[in-house]
Amino acid sequence: MFSSWLTQLNRGLATPIGRVAPLIWGSLSRSLMLSSQRRVPELSSFVARTNTCGELRSSHLGQEVTLCGWIQYRRQNIFLVLRDFQGLVQVLIPQDEKTEALRLQYRYLDLRSFQMQYNLRLRSQMVMKMREYLCGCHGFVDVETPTLFKRTPGGAKEFVIPSREPGKFYSLPQSPQQFKQLLMVGGLDRYFQVARCYRDEGSRPDRQPEFTQIDIEMSFVDQTGIRSLIEGLLQYSWPSDKGPVGVPFPSMTFAEALASYGTDKPDTRFGMKIVDVSDMLRNTGAGFLRDALSQPQGSAKAIRVPEGVKYLKRKDIESIQKFAADHFDQEVLPVFPKANRNWNSPVAKVVMEEQGLGLIRRMETQEEDMVLLTAGEHKSVCSSLGKLRLECADLLEARGVVLRDPALFSFLWVVDFPLFLPKEENPRELVSAHHPFTAPHPSDIHLLHTQPEKVRSQHYDLVLNGNEIGGGSIRIHDAQLQRYILETLLKEDVRLLSHLLQALDSGAPPHGGIALGLDRLICLVTGASSIRDVIAFPKSFRGHDLLSSAPDFVPPEDLKPYHIQVSWPTDSGAEKNSLNQPQHPES
Amino acid sequence: MFSSWLTQLNRGLATPIGRVAPLIWGSLSRSLMLSSQRRVPELSSFVARTNTCGELRSSHLGQEVTLCGWIQYRRQNIFLVLRDFQGLVQVLIPQDEKTEALRLQYRYLDLRSFQMQYNLRLRSQMVMKMREYLCGCHGFVDVETPTLFKRTPGGAKEFVIPSREPGKFYSLPQSPQQFKQLLMVGGLDRYFQVARCYRDEGSRPDRQPEFTQIDIEMSFVDQTGIRSLIEGLLQYSWPSDKGPVGVPFPSMTFAEALASYGTDKPDTRFGMKIVDVSDMLRNTGAGFLRDALSQPQGSAKAIRVPEGVKYLKRKDIESIQKFAADHFDQEVLPVFPKANRNWNSPVAKVVMEEQGLGLIRRMETQEEDMVLLTAGEHKSVCSSLGKLRLECADLLEARGVVLRDPALFSFLWVVDFPLFLPKEENPRELVSAHHPFTAPHPSDIHLLHTQPEKVRSQHYDLVLNGNEIGGGSIRIHDAQLQRYILETLLKEDVRLLSHLLQALDSGAPPHGGIALGLDRLICLVTGASSIRDVIAFPKSFRGHDLLSSAPDFVPPEDLKPYHIQVSWPTDSGAEKNSLNQPQHPES
Repeated sequence: MFSSWLTQLNRGLATPIGRVAPLIWGSLSRSLMLSSQRRVPELSSFVARTNTCGELRSSHLGQEVTLCGWIQYRRQNIFLVLRDFQGLVQVLIPQDEKTEALRLQYRYLDLRSFQMQYNLRLRSQMVMKMREYLCGCHGFVDVETPTLFKRTPGGAKEFVIPSREPGKFYSLPQSPQQFKQLLMVGGLDRYFQVARCYRDEGSRPDRQPEFTQIDIEMSFVDQTGIRSLIEGLLQYSWPSDKGPVGVPFPSMTFAEALASYGTDKPDTRFGMKIVDVSDMLRNTGAGFLRDALSQPQGSAKAIRVPEGVKYLKRKDIESIQKFAADHFDQEVLPVFPKANRNWNSPVAKVVMEEQGLGLIRRMETQEEDMVLLTAGEHKSVCSSLGKLRLECADLLEARGVVLRDPALFSFLWVVDFPLFLPKEENPRELVSAHHPFTAPHPSDIHLLHTQPEKVRSQHYDLVLNGNEIGGGSIRIHDAQLQRYILETLLKEDVRLLSHLLQALDSGAPPHGGIALGLDRLICLVTGASSIRDVIAFPKSFRGHDLLSSAPDFVPPEDLKPYHIQVSWPTDSGAEKNSLNQPQHPES
Repeated sequence: MFSSWLTQLNRGLATPIGRVAPLIWGSLSRSLMLSSQRRVPELSSFVARTNTCGELRSSHLGQEVTLCGWIQYRRQNIFLVLRDFQGLVQVLIPQDEKTEALRLQYRYLDLRSFQMQYNLRLRSQMVMKMREYLCGCHGFVDVETPTLFKRTPGGAKEFVIPSREPGKFYSLPQSPQQFKQLLMVGGLDRYFQVARCYRDEGSRPDRQPEFTQIDIEMSFVDQTGIRSLIEGLLQYSWPSDKGPVGVPFPSMTFAEALASYGTDKPDTRFGMKIVDVSDMLRNTGAGFLRDALSQPQGSAKAIRVPEGVKYLKRKDIESIQKFAADHFDQEVLPVFPKANRNWNSPVAKVVMEEQGLGLIRRMETQEEDMVLLTAGEHKSVCSSLGKLRLECADLLEARGVVLRDPALFSFLWVVDFPLFLPKEENPRELVSAHHPFTAPHPSDIHLLHTQPEKVRSQHYDLVLNGNEIGGGSIRIHDAQLQRYILETLLKEDVRLLSHLLQALDSGAPPHGGIALGLDRLICLVTGASSIRDVIAFPKSFRGHDLLSSAPDFVPPEDLKPYHIQVSWPTDSGAEKNSLNQPQHPES
């Protein structure tokens, strides 16, 4: 599997190998490919090694050998030079086994790396600064809320915890939402918590079953107040070596974000905004444009890819077109300022001849730029161009163009979200766009009884470099309005939230709050490639703790006090007896 | 159930009752006892009330009435004066229903009380100061560790959490012990966390299934270092209105604590220490003393109850004697400096005549004092007198003697605990006195292979006013020693801790740490009567969240993804069908 390279050196002994991590030991007892013929008889009798370091030659090529000795030095993090009394051998550390699973299994070694030390220490410092800002500068009270809570009806993503009472379960909450609202009713006035939250989403590559949020709630506050608070919080806690944070952050309505960036979390570090060109293409010769524009909500839109002609290859454009066709059922046309390019794009020519020059002026296109044009229903076109925008940015950057400065942190508030969305399984019914405690936008409150689907909410999201790092809202503090929304609009069983409704009826102050996703935020600040790099002991993407092998089997007698038993899947009934016993991960 | 009192006043209207908490509403629709005869016909037709406030007279005595109106004012927190257009009625708020269960059910109202606001705000501030001290002054790193962990073998107190893999469970850890040791192996050097921990102890009056500890671990540290750190931490974070904290805290060995106070958590705010008087009673005429002293470890011991003659009644002494007989199978003799008291205690006379005067001198007894004398095996006598010491202190204080100044905070380190204890079910086998990662005392290490039961540990407890508020130890950092203790002495399956043993084998630094019980500490600082008064949303003593009614039933289909089903107890099989459905707490 890996090759070695031999030198004969006779300097002093280095680290005794007994102190070396098992990771390295493992790699030494694998097959080595080598050169030379000399054999020293009997030098490896009675001990674990099969050969000395000095005796390996090309004649050993393909053999599996075990060596013992001292590490002389390490080269480029991929070679170890191992020595014994006879000489040295260079060992190639197999790169395909320095995977993330291995890092997680030996996390205590991985934590020694400069990068993990930096990430965890920066996380600690930044959270400490946030606490200073909240507690010290602004009188917030750090209140711990329970994590053994009641299951939310239909809370499919909530872990359950059996209690000692038959059939009764606690659940691990997805957020302290209800508790923080009750704290406002309880007169705590300004609450925060670095809160552990839980979400059972099965296997998701960059999610963790337990995660941390900076959870905040305030009484007698409006959106402006919460936004200023968070801007100040980030400015105050921002690491000094990451440059200053400019406030206030720009803000954008949800509708604007969708129209210009095709997403509710725009990456505003670079342009390439979506431009509506419907007006100038109404009489085009291209049939798909005419068809799209004749539909309700039909539109033609385009993005400009700077220097696209120079950097994008034909196969890139083909793959972009395939993506739009597969995911959005849309045709995408590349349009060039210079018409005489040798592209096999007859439709592009049609556009070019009729409206092309106007389009190029509207898009402020330079000679080497390319325009991607598509048409269809407004939301769908925006979403599709939003994805293509990011796709093109990746392609350009892969070819050396710097679009997104890695040292730049571009914050953005997205506001005025819809309060409700149509239910997926029945679009005539409504679900909360965020959660049912979100207050409606004051300008739209008259629509609640007539056109609830048109009501905007007082929800706000905080976006950083195209990632949602926080979200919150002004809450409903009026019990009657809360009951109307739960019961009449959302058809929920209000008895299950009777404690909250009762609380709102007991003199609840106007209140609102926000939660920042700490793992994601620290990941962006440190430039880590995964949230697992800013968590000391993360779970694997399948939700496993690879260090201790959790989750694990539990003997049936340990489940008895909790009045539960395992329902083994019927198709693996044969395995039942063996699986029913606790097994060691290594057995 | 409660009485009312009527006045005729005509001042302006007060708080509209519609804004009043359900707690108060509830009390208004109960029976009232009242006086007077006049009746105003029809004034209560068509509405919820049965009577007006003004019309209630003594003739209504014993009737259940419902009133509506406004609260005029509140008197002494137990009366409400309710008024309507006709007059006023004084309502007695039923005190027997202002119980803890009701407080927990309407926690959002209880939180508005001065005391809860003070407790929660003080907790937040004190924790913030601790963080400042640890992070800011001493370079600790705040690291979050997972709470979805692997079950400890035999961990009967660990909640289990079913995963989506059949038969596999996470568990909620009792402490981050393993993780913090792994962080030391990982080179984090100084770790702390305000850590949520979980322990399923069923119904325990003053325990919570989830609780919080200030969790600390350091590399390259010894006991002295940890103790100084904690002394500094408490001194720094102590609320200024609670007086200064003197450091260093006194320390006492476990053996000394047992001998002088009969417990490993002595309340050192007052004297009444246990005194060994074996030497002067060897030739007593009292048979039980002679018998006890002739046994191995046999001893006679006494405590002095200051002014006991003045304050303790005959029935007190009888109940003390009964307690010692019931719980420790011991005879307790009251001894008085004045022999001529009219007590029916012939044995006391025997002692008095022969060794009494010497005993009274040894105990430094004053005229009004009383001495309680008992004999038996050393540990048992100490434990029994330790309990009687606290019992007598309660009795004296109930009669107005100030023994334990409520403004005094008396810290104490208890050290040199035994490393192992005999197993309850088989005293020839050993269990860890604290946990298996505790390092042996360096002076006793030679006994590990010969007399392990005699080895003292490097464990230390922090005691405040007779409460254990923290504990920790220097850990074993040598894999071989750890394996020997786990495998040979404790007969544990070491494969289940293989990750920790491997980690210790990878260059683990010497390390140690401590955990402070935050809920208990804040409870003592605030003088609260229960830890539930320093937790925003505590569970009831049966582990219930009375606000939301957790734990609760979960529909079987919600358990399916977790491959578990409820094992209904066979003797309540009849209830199965009804219980198997989720039920609303109010239904």
